[in-house]
Amino acid sequence: MDTGVIYHYRRSASRLTIAAHLFGILAFILMLIWLLHYRGGIEYDSDNVDRVFNVHPFMMFCGFIFLVGEAMMVYKTVPASHSVQKFFHMILHLIAICLGIVGISAVFKFHDMVNTEDVYSLHSWIGIGTFCLFGLQWLFGLFTFTVPQPSDARASMLPWHICGGRALLYMAICAALTGLMEKSTFMQEKHTRENHLMNFTGLFILLFGIFIDLSVALARYV
Amino acid sequence: MDTGVIYHYRRSASRLTIAAHLFGILAFILMLIWLLHYRGGIEYDSDNVDRVFNVHPFMMFCGFIFLVGEAMMVYKTVPASHSVQKFFHMILHLIAICLGIVGISAVFKFHDMVNTEDVYSLHSWIGIGTFCLFGLQWLFGLFTFTVPQPSDARASMLPWHICGGRALLYMAICAALTGLMEKSTFMQEKHTRENHLMNFTGLFILLFGIFIDLSVALARYV
Repeated sequence: MDTGVIYHYRRSASRLTIAAHLFGILAFILMLIWLLHYRGGIEYDSDNVDRVFNVHPFMMFCGFIFLVGEAMMVYKTVPASHSVQKFFHMILHLIAICLGIVGISAVFKFHDMVNTEDVYSLHSWIGIGTFCLFGLQWLFGLFTFTVPQPSDARASMLPWHICGGRALLYMAICAALTGLMEKSTFMQEKHTRENHLMNFTGLFILLFGIFIDLSVALARYV
Repeated sequence: MDTGVIYHYRRSASRLTIAAHLFGILAFILMLIWLLHYRGGIEYDSDNVDRVFNVHPFMMFCGFIFLVGEAMMVYKTVPASHSVQKFFHMILHLIAICLGIVGISAVFKFHDMVNTEDVYSLHSWIGIGTFCLFGLQWLFGLFTFTVPQPSDARASMLPWHICGGRALLYMAICAALTGLMEKSTFMQEKHTRENHLMNFTGLFILLFGIFIDLSVALARYV
């Protein structure tokens, strides 16, 4: 049974896009307060193990949540031609991958410094899985949408690219939230200021993801 | 700039729907092995605090992940008229809410028994937020799609219902994964069988959610 419905794709920023930015910026500010005020700062080449570790949440959030979110909303936020928007979409994801590599290296360096095991937690499994699939999705996007192709082939791959991208965004958010959860359970703090700050950071990251999804998806039903 | 595109909504099960079921059933089996073999069983009226606690992950997974997932795929899996499918969609969500209430009560009972604080972790914040919004979404759906309404009003609310439902599914998955993460960090086990079992349970829950999303969303682009 097929029901044909006409959807118009509205390509402009909406109040949902603004809300997404608001939650993203709030998460960014709270994460900076947490890492700089409570956790001793962010530095890759440091003898202080905490400062090395802190590079990980900072880079993963900036790259894999914030930049990826911005890259997904680029068709609504950058007032330029479609090809310029596509270029920004591609390049923001590439920067996200570079920041992700630094962030992942930082946590392996931290594990070496404190002499602990790698890749045992659910957080690390989800995170590494997401990173690898993300790299494949980027390559897939590059070959499908920048190399000349028959337009039919592109049109048939677009839904997979869109739905796969959304799944990867939610996977990245799951990785971020399990990471925050792991850290706060390790710290064994309950009703403290720092724990509440971490919880609000997590909530705003989740709301950032949800509002990106709503902002991009609802625009297809106008 | 508006681009009119015609999408056909395919209402039939696909290989993605089958994959979603496969991951859901795998997660269910692994969770049962974990709770029955490693964690001492599931019982609400028990003096053993672990057995009381275990009601929580079991009910939340059965209700808020598995039944909700089935309810979302009902339009593709139940070969019946649209109104029968709608009824199943509504009633499965109602059963999910009832199981959710039992699951949440169980964890509060466990906290009372071990004399610990409630609602301090990111997991509990996401979980309670998801449960409340889920109840609102159910009521909103009931009044919009069962009480007689002008068809224009229904059509304009449908995208919100669909996108809101998807956001709630991913929120429930974030709650499940942060819960598993919290439990496994508490247990401080690393490369043990039980920890790997919990990680695979989490991964299959995530894959169940992603394949539900793909199965439902990709059917709209045929």
